[in-house]
Amino acid sequence: MLAEIITIGDEILIGQIVDTNSAWMGKELNTIGISVKQITSVSDNAEHIIQALNEAQKRVDIILITGGLGPTKDDITKLTLSKYFNMPLRRDQATLQHVTEIFARLNRPMIDVNIKQADVPDGCTVIQNKNGTAPCMWFEVNGKIIVSMPGVPFEMMYLMEEEILPRLKKAFTLPFIVHKTILTSGLGESFLAQQIEDIEDSLPSHIKLAYLPKLGQVRLRLSATGNNETSLKADVDVYAQQIIQRINSYVVIDEDVALEKAILDKMKAKNLTLSTAESCTGGYIAHLITQHAGSSAVFAGGAVAYSYDLKESILGVKHQTLTEFGAVSGQTVKEMAQGAITHFKTDYSIAVSGIAGPDGGMPGKPVGTVWIAIASKDEVVAKLFTFSNKRIQNIERSATAALTMLLNLLKQDS
Amino acid sequence: MLAEIITIGDEILIGQIVDTNSAWMGKELNTIGISVKQITSVSDNAEHIIQALNEAQKRVDIILITGGLGPTKDDITKLTLSKYFNMPLRRDQATLQHVTEIFARLNRPMIDVNIKQADVPDGCTVIQNKNGTAPCMWFEVNGKIIVSMPGVPFEMMYLMEEEILPRLKKAFTLPFIVHKTILTSGLGESFLAQQIEDIEDSLPSHIKLAYLPKLGQVRLRLSATGNNETSLKADVDVYAQQIIQRINSYVVIDEDVALEKAILDKMKAKNLTLSTAESCTGGYIAHLITQHAGSSAVFAGGAVAYSYDLKESILGVKHQTLTEFGAVSGQTVKEMAQGAITHFKTDYSIAVSGIAGPDGGMPGKPVGTVWIAIASKDEVVAKLFTFSNKRIQNIERSATAALTMLLNLLKQDS
Repeated sequence: MLAEIITIGDEILIGQIVDTNSAWMGKELNTIGISVKQITSVSDNAEHIIQALNEAQKRVDIILITGGLGPTKDDITKLTLSKYFNMPLRRDQATLQHVTEIFARLNRPMIDVNIKQADVPDGCTVIQNKNGTAPCMWFEVNGKIIVSMPGVPFEMMYLMEEEILPRLKKAFTLPFIVHKTILTSGLGESFLAQQIEDIEDSLPSHIKLAYLPKLGQVRLRLSATGNNETSLKADVDVYAQQIIQRINSYVVIDEDVALEKAILDKMKAKNLTLSTAESCTGGYIAHLITQHAGSSAVFAGGAVAYSYDLKESILGVKHQTLTEFGAVSGQTVKEMAQGAITHFKTDYSIAVSGIAGPDGGMPGKPVGTVWIAIASKDEVVAKLFTFSNKRIQNIERSATAALTMLLNLLKQDS
Repeated sequence: MLAEIITIGDEILIGQIVDTNSAWMGKELNTIGISVKQITSVSDNAEHIIQALNEAQKRVDIILITGGLGPTKDDITKLTLSKYFNMPLRRDQATLQHVTEIFARLNRPMIDVNIKQADVPDGCTVIQNKNGTAPCMWFEVNGKIIVSMPGVPFEMMYLMEEEILPRLKKAFTLPFIVHKTILTSGLGESFLAQQIEDIEDSLPSHIKLAYLPKLGQVRLRLSATGNNETSLKADVDVYAQQIIQRINSYVVIDEDVALEKAILDKMKAKNLTLSTAESCTGGYIAHLITQHAGSSAVFAGGAVAYSYDLKESILGVKHQTLTEFGAVSGQTVKEMAQGAITHFKTDYSIAVSGIAGPDGGMPGKPVGTVWIAIASKDEVVAKLFTFSNKRIQNIERSATAALTMLLNLLKQDS
């Protein structure tokens, strides 16, 4: 079954925003057995939207549209669909009530354009958007399914997960696609590929292996397609176990979860607590951890200490250590990690100090030099990394490296 | 002048990678007066690529293609273009020499597929790719310009900047496109639209206004197209000033920068320092700030204090305050903010404490309840917000609200 994604919005074409929706949607559609044939980004222009719809209908059976549903004048998707399908607008009472409730909750007056959010083409199925005022519209015309969703990522994601994907599964007889993901860390994709080459070559034709690399991590995803879900799961498990045995020391977890979530789950199960002492990662590691629900059971807190002063006062790093070895040194990160254990009263801690760049490099310590330490109550280990000259990447790579080090220490301690 | 970007690659359609190339290209093309009419992502399939080329030629005069130029079997862009333009492949000696040199430098043997990188359709202009082995190919057929580039971002970017953009500027007499962005915070897009409706209606036809909302922020973008850059800038400024005057209290900055970057610039110019005391935002505000180069000149550091203990020990919140009013209270965030000022020795501070969810709500303090305080050495203000039941959104909204409060205090103090 083939789908096309049409994203509508001038902001995409002028490069003001990167379209991250389409990749997410492509991935989700794949999991239920629908392949994306094409992604088309068009402007907020009625003629252009219609052209894209006409072209897409020649290629696919499912068209998912995002964007152009805001209340302002530049948003014309709804009007265009109304004309395209020859379905005049009607006021949808359920949507009106929903919009009214949102404004009541925010204690704000509703103005005309807000009320108009409740107008929908007469003939589409209206799906309420719990996270916003623009309703989702589902059209079934000439055997094709066309769905219009808001472009705001969290509104679109909620609608896809809760409404669109389940409805598409019902509407078509789709094959089962069973995925099994193995999260690895510490080895590049070409080296992983080399280590498991014979296993990959032995995969039957209904099972595919994909390498999904992300700074410092590689996800190995086995996908099996067929009609019998139970036997697909069994098939995939056989090969997953072979791979896990082969590359065991690089396997973080055999689930499709984030690295820090795997750590949180492991630590929570053992009632262990964690703190962070961050310099160049600037709170990013704490943020990665605390974005997950329930993280407070494990994570007590942390410090972001950019200055020498704060490294001393909050984390108890010795003044002499800083002046003798510098802030970016094995000695300093070790004291930061131990300080976190002591001051924040946790079982484990992560400490990072480095030069994220683009400025701040010095002889012997170029931009990208990062020291990471991991401490438990009994031990502290520090490691030196040399990353790139890109600030954001250095922050992300440092976080991945630190979390991988923590995971290895946890494995070793258990 | 209109262009279309065609990105080729299955990895885009299955959501394995996010296409960041197109946004970058769109922005760069805009600066030289070329508008991107459409972005089309297609699979590594000859028929599909040809269909996309045919459709694009009906819409635009310039087609920029990325991807599908690698040495492996799944990369078929070059062969497809050779057939499409009826230009058989010839071996390009300059490219062969370039590829040979690369392999010699890497001290690696060249195999057949590497030599074939030097084969190009006979009739295109070959542009050497200094950062890789796949050459860039420039076709001029029937008055259209079609350029094929590798999809690797740094190869594409180098080719665009050094070769393609200068050549396009020479090939066409291009109009100027001038953008002016006003970043606002604190008022939804429909209310902003209502307040400036008459200004929007009075815009001349060569100036467009777009609303670009993001949790708690809206960017207003004026875009003017014409032949005289100076007069376009003047035109846009007239309307930008009208809008800024009208919605002054919501304007963060009249530049296309992130909210926290606007704050960093403002504070740096006045030699002011900042610290953070975060509970429910868990380091996200510190991360937003420290992702920007040069943030260390302003940001001293901060604490992520989830537990009562840490709120007391690192931030000096009184035990009695926590037990009497709770961690999520105006009293507690005020003491957190004041504690940050004292302990981290900064001029300003941000403190946030709330219930991000999905669990942890209590009677009178449902999930989404967030207290934010902003302090200077002289004063501290706290404000209560009620957000949603989504954790990530609550974190993001809290950050935007906190940064907006800080900006307002900075404005008031200056």
